Amino acid sequence: MNQPFSRPQGRALDALRPVRIERHYTIHAEGSVLVSFGNTKVLCTASVEERVPPHQRGTGQGWVTAEYGMLPRSTHTRSSREAAKGKQSGRTQEIQRLIGRSLRAVFDLKALGERTIQLDCDVLQADGGTRTAAITGAYVAARDAVDWLLRQGLLSQSPLTGSVAAISVGIVQGTPVLDLEYEEDVACDTDMNIVMTDAGQFIEVQGTAEGVSFSRDEMAQLLDLAEKGIRELTHLQHQALAGR
Amino acid sequence: MNQPFSRPQGRALDALRPVRIERHYTIHAEGSVLVSFGNTKVLCTASVEERVPPHQRGTGQGWVTAEYGMLPRSTHTRSSREAAKGKQSGRTQEIQRLIGRSLRAVFDLKALGERTIQLDCDVLQADGGTRTAAITGAYVAARDAVDWLLRQGLLSQSPLTGSVAAISVGIVQGTPVLDLEYEEDVACDTDMNIVMTDAGQFIEVQGTAEGVSFSRDEMAQLLDLAEKGIRELTHLQHQALAGR
Amino acid sequence: MNQPFSRPQGRALDALRPVRIERHYTIHAEGSVLVSFGNTKVLCTASVEERVPPHQRGTGQGWVTAEYGMLPRSTHTRSSREAAKGKQSGRTQEIQRLIGRSLRAVFDLKALGERTIQLDCDVLQADGGTRTAAITGAYVAARDAVDWLLRQGLLSQSPLTGSVAAISVGIVQGTPVLDLEYEEDVACDTDMNIVMTDAGQFIEVQGTAEGVSFSRDEMAQLLDLAEKGIRELTHLQHQALAGR
Amino acid sequence: MNQPFSRPQGRALDALRPVRIERHYTIHAEGSVLVSFGNTKVLCTASVEERVPPHQRGTGQGWVTAEYGMLPRSTHTRSSREAAKGKQSGRTQEIQRLIGRSLRAVFDLKALGERTIQLDCDVLQADGGTRTAAITGAYVAARDAVDWLLRQGLLSQSPLTGSVAAISVGIVQGTPVLDLEYEEDVACDTDMNIVMTDAGQFIEVQGTAEGVSFSRDEMAQLLDLAEKGIRELTHLQHQALAGR
Amino acid sequence: MNQPFSRPQGRALDALRPVRIERHYTIHAEGSVLVSFGNTKVLCTASVEERVPPHQRGTGQGWVTAEYGMLPRSTHTRSSREAAKGKQSGRTQEIQRLIGRSLRAVFDLKALGERTIQLDCDVLQADGGTRTAAITGAYVAARDAVDWLLRQGLLSQSPLTGSVAAISVGIVQGTPVLDLEYEEDVACDTDMNIVMTDAGQFIEVQGTAEGVSFSRDEMAQLLDLAEKGIRELTHLQHQALAGR
Amino acid sequence: MNQPFSRPQGRALDALRPVRIERHYTIHAEGSVLVSFGNTKVLCTASVEERVPPHQRGTGQGWVTAEYGMLPRSTHTRSSREAAKGKQSGRTQEIQRLIGRSLRAVFDLKALGERTIQLDCDVLQADGGTRTAAITGAYVAARDAVDWLLRQGLLSQSPLTGSVAAISVGIVQGTPVLDLEYEEDVACDTDMNIVMTDAGQFIEVQGTAEGVSFSRDEMAQLLDLAEKGIRELTHLQHQALAGR
Repeated sequence: MNQPFSRPQGRALDALRPVRIERHYTIHAEGSVLVSFGNTKVLCTASVEERVPPHQRGTGQGWVTAEYGMLPRSTHTRSSREAAKGKQSGRTQEIQRLIGRSLRAVFDLKALGERTIQLDCDVLQADGGTRTAAITGAYVAARDAVDWLLRQGLLSQSPLTGSVAAISVGIVQGTPVLDLEYEEDVACDTDMNIVMTDAGQFIEVQGTAEGVSFSRDEMAQLLDLAEKGIRELTHLQHQALAGR
Repeated sequence: MNQPFSRPQGRALDALRPVRIERHYTIHAEGSVLVSFGNTKVLCTASVEERVPPHQRGTGQGWVTAEYGMLPRSTHTRSSREAAKGKQSGRTQEIQRLIGRSLRAVFDLKALGERTIQLDCDVLQADGGTRTAAITGAYVAARDAVDWLLRQGLLSQSPLTGSVAAISVGIVQGTPVLDLEYEEDVACDTDMNIVMTDAGQFIEVQGTAEGVSFSRDEMAQLLDLAEKGIRELTHLQHQALAGR
Repeated sequence: MNQPFSRPQGRALDALRPVRIERHYTIHAEGSVLVSFGNTKVLCTASVEERVPPHQRGTGQGWVTAEYGMLPRSTHTRSSREAAKGKQSGRTQEIQRLIGRSLRAVFDLKALGERTIQLDCDVLQADGGTRTAAITGAYVAARDAVDWLLRQGLLSQSPLTGSVAAISVGIVQGTPVLDLEYEEDVACDTDMNIVMTDAGQFIEVQGTAEGVSFSRDEMAQLLDLAEKGIRELTHLQHQALAGR
Repeated sequence: MNQPFSRPQGRALDALRPVRIERHYTIHAEGSVLVSFGNTKVLCTASVEERVPPHQRGTGQGWVTAEYGMLPRSTHTRSSREAAKGKQSGRTQEIQRLIGRSLRAVFDLKALGERTIQLDCDVLQADGGTRTAAITGAYVAARDAVDWLLRQGLLSQSPLTGSVAAISVGIVQGTPVLDLEYEEDVACDTDMNIVMTDAGQFIEVQGTAEGVSFSRDEMAQLLDLAEKGIRELTHLQHQALAGR
Repeated sequence: MNQPFSRPQGRALDALRPVRIERHYTIHAEGSVLVSFGNTKVLCTASVEERVPPHQRGTGQGWVTAEYGMLPRSTHTRSSREAAKGKQSGRTQEIQRLIGRSLRAVFDLKALGERTIQLDCDVLQADGGTRTAAITGAYVAARDAVDWLLRQGLLSQSPLTGSVAAISVGIVQGTPVLDLEYEEDVACDTDMNIVMTDAGQFIEVQGTAEGVSFSRDEMAQLLDLAEKGIRELTHLQHQALAGR
Repeated sequence: MNQPFSRPQGRALDALRPVRIERHYTIHAEGSVLVSFGNTKVLCTASVEERVPPHQRGTGQGWVTAEYGMLPRSTHTRSSREAAKGKQSGRTQEIQRLIGRSLRAVFDLKALGERTIQLDCDVLQADGGTRTAAITGAYVAARDAVDWLLRQGLLSQSPLTGSVAAISVGIVQGTPVLDLEYEEDVACDTDMNIVMTDAGQFIEVQGTAEGVSFSRDEMAQLLDLAEKGIRELTHLQHQALAGR
């Protein structure tokens, strides 16, 4: 790393922001988690529905899918409401597809049976990293929904094959850093979102050069940072789930 | 009142649910309030925008408007996301028009100047009375946004002409009650939403017979209950605003 | 009442405009009524459909619902066509929901059986009070459709439990008046739409302060005016139905 | 003509249905005509707007355009409302484009100046031939709007270069007939809509074989019939315009 | 014909542009044809689907339908992508309805059985006459799809009752010409698209005066030209189909 | 690599399919390239527009953006037309955003000036790898459009800072392979799309585990394959551009 970049609040280059995972945040959903990565706050609910989309009907397999949204004033300046505009942006669709794929990667859909776990990730407050917070929180909500299914006797064993978490890494002013907040995200040259299992395997790697392209060596440094971050998030998820 | 109806948790017929008004709930908006009427929780933000919609351009007058939404799993069973469906329901539009009219009723738009106060009321958790909670919270958020404009020196005096609050009343099993929760709302014969100023004047009266029509005498009883509820809400709004 | 307001054409404060109810206005619908409140003209058709929407299927109950539209040049200046814009405005949805609820209030849906009465209220010419004219005319069209069902032997007794009519009242320059025409509607401080049965019971009360809020006492005066107007409309409906 | 086909009500093969052209049918539009071709009734309004669409701006030329709609229960069985479905059908778009082109054909757009004549053709009752009735009525409404512009002093001479009318012809059971009503339209092999000027020139010829293709000789017979019908319609239009 | 108009590249007034019909242009579709009328190039595919739209279900009859599109830069200046705009233009809908009707005219839908032949006509390069090229090419693709059905043993005899082709004719500077290219189309007074069978019968005649109306005599000259052009196209279609 | 997987047509694990880059495929666009990766064929056009989107206006900078579409029968079974459905799928939006970002990465937008290069990538035939073929072809089309701008004297030096190409890699039955065709894509565990410059720098890395997650070591093997593929594609692009 050349000329080290100094982060807001003196955060270390390889440090996560304070992460908080509050379960049972709302009362109706089978799983309901408010996850905070610093000032980024995402409400993740998991709803169990005893039906599957058409492409899974009659297969004996279940489905896990996600939707994502930002409250209009979760951002620095108000962004317009997608429901009022009448369509979801390309960015929204990309993110909710990513969340859905990431969660499906740790589900045995056959073991889930013909039902759907519908994840809703709604950003109450945004400060960078909403998609990685969403995946990290959605896993905990999904796990609570699975536990609900087990408690109800609707499932006799868990269809989860592991846990999943996500973190962003990036190169800001030539310096690789972990868990970018908004101010860093805007300034970065390369932005990468990494989704991994608790076994240290990759589920998604999405890296984008925003301005300056990156070398193979830089990519290696980013992956190192991400692996460290994911280990910490995995620990925090397990800790949260160990509570009531 | 014939055969008195017994309310959940032994609530008195003329009692509000516990009401909580938390200001500064999120960090970006000029006003941000989480209002709770029992288990109903609505996040109300007020955003100041230095422009007005076309119909007000060049008039020297400002505008106050509102949008409303429910998170998909704010409800007992998940309702589909309006952004994904590509349109807002008739119910959503009715409610956001009601919130906008109610708030405009206490604004001197000329004194506001050519700017907009955009209110966003998003239901995090629903248990009946979301529109009345939204109006009650939106007033507090709007007041915080006005104070921000005054502090910034963008306004030299407040364009607010009073305060506004809203409550529901209804007839459940022949008994008039104040502030219906979901279970009562589903069972009621008549449902009325009342919006009033702190001066005890009416802004909106919207009563609907859901099944059994109501008499002039019953309407009088409902209005009595509503006046009592609004007085209490007005007090709670002023108390919340007296804090930091 | 302070400084009495003088109405167009010297109309009395508590007088309806000339009301005309023409049945069999078009030939295809089971009920077809052109209703005029002065220059406001609304074509109300009632169509019998031998199916119900999904939420009523298999319940043994029928459904009554309404749609509302304005021809583009029914108004002083042309308004754009909702079919061309690709969506119905919030106002249109509010009105059609109101018409549907009002008519359902006088139907025993179980007695109707699993069929739908679809009401279409299309404004040919607008001069204030289109929604109240629509409800008043839709009742007559619905009654003709019910008589058609009885004549066809599809029903053996009427599912109607009474009749329904609607009227607007408002406060113009401090003076409560009945049945506002467009010029008065634009100038009024408070506008209230009242839907009542022939038994003098309320189905809907929708009052809105447009500018100046109103007192409990003013509301009482408005309800008195509305009750008078509805009695006259009920009489005119019954008279029209007594014809061929 | 082989085995002559017998028409409803004993109408002659080359006879129009009774045609009625009522001007000043509604009060707000600059031109407002209810045109009836037998049981087909179309309300045609012409609205003058002092602006032109983007493609004409700054050219010094005006524009003439049309929209078309059917009330949901103008037809034998109710068809769904396009405003509620959120889009106009291909048929609707075809028809409104045809009406617009037909009317533009008799306008000198330069002489009209930078303003728009917007025609709205709404079918109140349908029994075949709605598009030809619409064009025939729209001309009269457009002429009334032009006269209004002349009376207002907004134009000093008429931009109209002639009159326009339209009629349908078709081959039913091998027999060419004029002005098809619904029952004939459904049964016909070939359906042709012809738009002509009062000078006997063609503006549009749209013939479609619905089932059985047609010969050059049959086309000649259809054109003969159409020329006769258009002459009669032109006479009726001029007669109607000679009234108040 | 007065003052003879001189065509680009010295083309004779009654000459087609060079026509090319390439079968098997893409590999997946049951029929796939690239048709060129000079610089106009349209890819026509025919897809066999073992289902029919709702209105044909259970009738034992099949369906033939078409969709049409232009690649955004098939035109001189880029036109916006209809998928991105979220709707098909009125022109697109008119053309695809015309293609569908034209092809259905040579199909015995009963003999096709309850399956659909879906035609997709996508313009790769436009230079006038895209709809006539599309119909001419779609027939060849449809014929290849029918042959595929016969080879697969899904049909034992062809449901085709003839062949179909289409050509444009028009009056440019007072001169009737065959097969207008873009530059002529823009300049023409009258534009007519003719669809005919190999038996010399008419399926569609769509003539539009763009500016100057046309006489019965001019129409006769245009039909003569069209008949000549269709004969030549029919020959080229049969020749193409005689290849592999 | 464990149990080596045998590819269709005996292709080597690290071999590209036959790649063909045909310039000047259509006549209207400033750049027009048909690119083939085996049976995948994408038409890429580059259109120069002398305007920029709102977010770039007045900045002195240009813009480069892309749209993507598949012809309905470019695929094995017909997929529905997005223009007819009225919206682009999430997949389409993801891909066109990827193409746009990839191309912008090699443009100096300031040097381009306030104009837009609009890339349209339309899949004529699909067999896996359509987005990587699209990026690879779009670069060549963009380069032709830049050369056109230079020839026209609208630019005096090229705003391109390098070239860009893209390729897919994946793990099929445990074996890393280069440039997946459809049959391999469907069967693969991990799918990664890589976009690189001719300088060997990364622009985008998008890897997704479809079923089985992947290790850091597998990622390294995939990146090695991609680097080899991109070098070859870069060479082929330069070769194509060296022609007329």
